[in-house]
Amino acid sequence: MSLSVSLTAVPGIPDVQNGDDLARILGDALVAADLTPQAGDILVIAQKVFSKAEGCIIPLSTVQPSLEALKYAEKLNKDARKVEVVLRESSRVVRSFKRPDQNEGTMICEHRLGFISANAAVDESNFGEEDAAMVLPKDPDASCTVLRAALSARFGIEIGVVMTDTFGRPWRLGQVNVAIGLSKVPATIREQGNVDAWGRPLAVTEPALCDEIAAASGLVVRKDGKTPAVLLRGLDWQPENSSGADILRKKQEDMFR
Amino acid sequence: MSLSVSLTAVPGIPDVQNGDDLARILGDALVAADLTPQAGDILVIAQKVFSKAEGCIIPLSTVQPSLEALKYAEKLNKDARKVEVVLRESSRVVRSFKRPDQNEGTMICEHRLGFISANAAVDESNFGEEDAAMVLPKDPDASCTVLRAALSARFGIEIGVVMTDTFGRPWRLGQVNVAIGLSKVPATIREQGNVDAWGRPLAVTEPALCDEIAAASGLVVRKDGKTPAVLLRGLDWQPENSSGADILRKKQEDMFR
Repeated sequence: MSLSVSLTAVPGIPDVQNGDDLARILGDALVAADLTPQAGDILVIAQKVFSKAEGCIIPLSTVQPSLEALKYAEKLNKDARKVEVVLRESSRVVRSFKRPDQNEGTMICEHRLGFISANAAVDESNFGEEDAAMVLPKDPDASCTVLRAALSARFGIEIGVVMTDTFGRPWRLGQVNVAIGLSKVPATIREQGNVDAWGRPLAVTEPALCDEIAAASGLVVRKDGKTPAVLLRGLDWQPENSSGADILRKKQEDMFR
Repeated sequence: MSLSVSLTAVPGIPDVQNGDDLARILGDALVAADLTPQAGDILVIAQKVFSKAEGCIIPLSTVQPSLEALKYAEKLNKDARKVEVVLRESSRVVRSFKRPDQNEGTMICEHRLGFISANAAVDESNFGEEDAAMVLPKDPDASCTVLRAALSARFGIEIGVVMTDTFGRPWRLGQVNVAIGLSKVPATIREQGNVDAWGRPLAVTEPALCDEIAAASGLVVRKDGKTPAVLLRGLDWQPENSSGADILRKKQEDMFR
């Protein structure tokens, strides 16, 4: 049982460009910061770094809005080309609305990867380009696995990797980081069958480990600080084959879409 | 800008009883574990400890179910007395359902304090009593403030206190800890007006600091480990007068109730 963990922002990561070797960049930054990975460490990395390295940036000048995009754009006072990118990333629009206090409305979408998030996790800021939209990596789990394998090989130890994105929530204000890609880190800890400290069965307790890790990373990553990677050390966990999709509630078990 | 934080489970906290002096118990446990609080530390504590100390445990033998409770109990295959406690804690039932795979159904409720959670955060396990239900403290912010003031006075430094509970989420499986009571810890960090590292305005970024802290505490607290308190050290934060209600989305801005 882990009693203490530390979260450290990895300093010195340069602005990542399309085609960059993330494993080399992050590995070098870890070593330079005296944070050489140890067995059991988990590297928590913001999605935007992967998206930049994988060229997931779409110049809006190349986007031709569909009729559906034009309709949403008018209703929500949004750039129709951005809406078109959002629709291409989505399998479904769950809600769309523009409150009187909003300049631009919001689309809550089911992303093709299954996550429910505002604007299908399409990002319009924070990546240093005007008139472009950033979309999620094609396969976040695969991106995590490639990175994990390269770093594990370089340092000769096994680590875990979590890719995060910043989501809003129903009912609660503000944003938290959540996990959208995993390599070796379990999505949840299934405590069924365990008993609590007083001997009562813990029937339904299933901590969302990957989201706890993602949210915790927010404590040391600030968007204006250019620190998109966090090293989590000291956690008690067991590697398993996992996927960001493991955390998704099945549609038929969900009362809020 | 904080670059590294640590989260440490406070060991040696005894099973708390009605009327116990939490500040003394936690202060003693911190000192005994060589975790004497330092200025800027945040103590993150599970709701059940406060509820036990404040006697928020209702023997079901004393509960007379209303007609409404009996109706929900039949529909959801639940103990009508537990349903009655849930209804008394709620200002509204947002959803109620029982899927074929569930033995007992679920009520998603708006708690009298404004939080939306399953069964109005009424707990049926993990507190060492059969045939009883545990409800939230009457005023979680006040409970946090009393504790904070006593510990700050004892140790001569300013700390923050966060009370957590374990909530499920729409769309995502598993549970995470969220903040339901605050003393001096801001609910969110408002980054409006800031610019990101590339000079673009961060128009709508508002990290949910209190929920990041709560979720992070889950990494070192496990229910079967009797470690209901976590010391967070190293965080960059500014004290302010805050409330657990600060994190609640206004009803009219919420598309999911």
